[in-house]
Amino acid sequence: MRIKLMIEYDGTAYGGWQRQNNAPSIQAEIESAIEAVTAEKVVITGSGRTDAGVHAWGQVAHFDTESGLTPERFAFAINAHLPSDITIRESEAVNDDFHARYDAKGKWYRYSIYNHRQPSALHRTFHSHVPVELDVAAMQRALPAIIGRHDFAAFMSAGSDLTDTVRQITAARLHQDGYGIDIDVLGNGFLYNMVRIIAGTLIDIGRGKLDEHALSAMLQHKNRELGGATAKPNGLMLMQVFYEGIPDEKLLFGS
Amino acid sequence: MRIKLMIEYDGTAYGGWQRQNNAPSIQAEIESAIEAVTAEKVVITGSGRTDAGVHAWGQVAHFDTESGLTPERFAFAINAHLPSDITIRESEAVNDDFHARYDAKGKWYRYSIYNHRQPSALHRTFHSHVPVELDVAAMQRALPAIIGRHDFAAFMSAGSDLTDTVRQITAARLHQDGYGIDIDVLGNGFLYNMVRIIAGTLIDIGRGKLDEHALSAMLQHKNRELGGATAKPNGLMLMQVFYEGIPDEKLLFGS
Repeated sequence: MRIKLMIEYDGTAYGGWQRQNNAPSIQAEIESAIEAVTAEKVVITGSGRTDAGVHAWGQVAHFDTESGLTPERFAFAINAHLPSDITIRESEAVNDDFHARYDAKGKWYRYSIYNHRQPSALHRTFHSHVPVELDVAAMQRALPAIIGRHDFAAFMSAGSDLTDTVRQITAARLHQDGYGIDIDVLGNGFLYNMVRIIAGTLIDIGRGKLDEHALSAMLQHKNRELGGATAKPNGLMLMQVFYEGIPDEKLLFGS
Repeated sequence: MRIKLMIEYDGTAYGGWQRQNNAPSIQAEIESAIEAVTAEKVVITGSGRTDAGVHAWGQVAHFDTESGLTPERFAFAINAHLPSDITIRESEAVNDDFHARYDAKGKWYRYSIYNHRQPSALHRTFHSHVPVELDVAAMQRALPAIIGRHDFAAFMSAGSDLTDTVRQITAARLHQDGYGIDIDVLGNGFLYNMVRIIAGTLIDIGRGKLDEHALSAMLQHKNRELGGATAKPNGLMLMQVFYEGIPDEKLLFGS
């Protein structure tokens, strides 16, 4: 039986999603918890990796099991063996050909900024602190440049040998609420560090270090150097993975 | 010079606001940080204590100093010596007769619930997890009973020798957003554990263990036994302390 998990995590304490030798990982914690439940050695397949310090509200993974446990009970059973910073929101049975990575039609990421002179004790975990004043209107004007089908070669950290760098962004929104700024990006796929490079470039636009056309210029010239720094990992959250096509942004963000 | 601090903290790691022998406290951390800045031994006076595990977005405290530092710079200087789960949002000079506790005209507390079968990795710090389904409409109908001037003797944990138990609640609101439920209470003063007893009683009303008139019955009969359990500390947040009178709820909560 193939089980699909919807997974939530606070990535602060982890070296990232993927199992690795020198740091705790989300994947290894969940595999150990499943093993404690089913007494089987399992490997779970996620919709994609998240980096060290990155969080998820709706990561998706699948695994195969011979266990006779009711599919919906896996969430309860696995949670009983997980640390409190990783939780299974839901578990369900899926067809044996469901694949968490290959079947993903799109993803929704959110990058969250706390914009205040002083750091925030309450928002330190899930927001990146930007202490200088940001021109939010300029950031909002700049963001739509990434919407559409583009070659995002300039939005990828060095070291990747990926050759197909064309991706489609179906929606992007920047929303301010008090000291908080959320940047929501919806697309059919994302390159390594792509959202953090978009966020870092917007932050530099907001602080006046880059002009409002920086995102357009990066796309046009395919040049990473025209963008801002890669924003810190703790502001990034994988919100949702879509398997039935990408929903209309109004359904996600409200009107 | 008397300095007023606006303080934000994640109370998870602390034995409460007040300095104590056997556990770290918010007060002691801030006093040590001020000492590192001014080289003076100081005692800070808060608007009131918060219990172990309780958080604050807008705790207020004052202290006296001979330091020549610009009042607004204290926030930066103290933050440099604080752990990341306590931050000073603002510092300002006040009259020498300002008193953080005696001058407080009112407070706003929020109690936050995460209502889902599974616990939440992302909301575990600032929300109390209630895994059973809650009848939120019943909780909303019950809450207004506490608004007004009442003897809240039934809303106080045992062991207090307080005799004046009359308090005025000027506004109370229950707001649901997804799996989150926020209970906001605004009043001129609060007894020991009062908000946690209100929240615990509402939770028991929501799960059908108590009927909708439980809050009214507690007020009428002054009997703690008619209420629910004292809700867990991690859901409680001191939002704001008012020194100029209590604002209209619409200003705080929106319309």
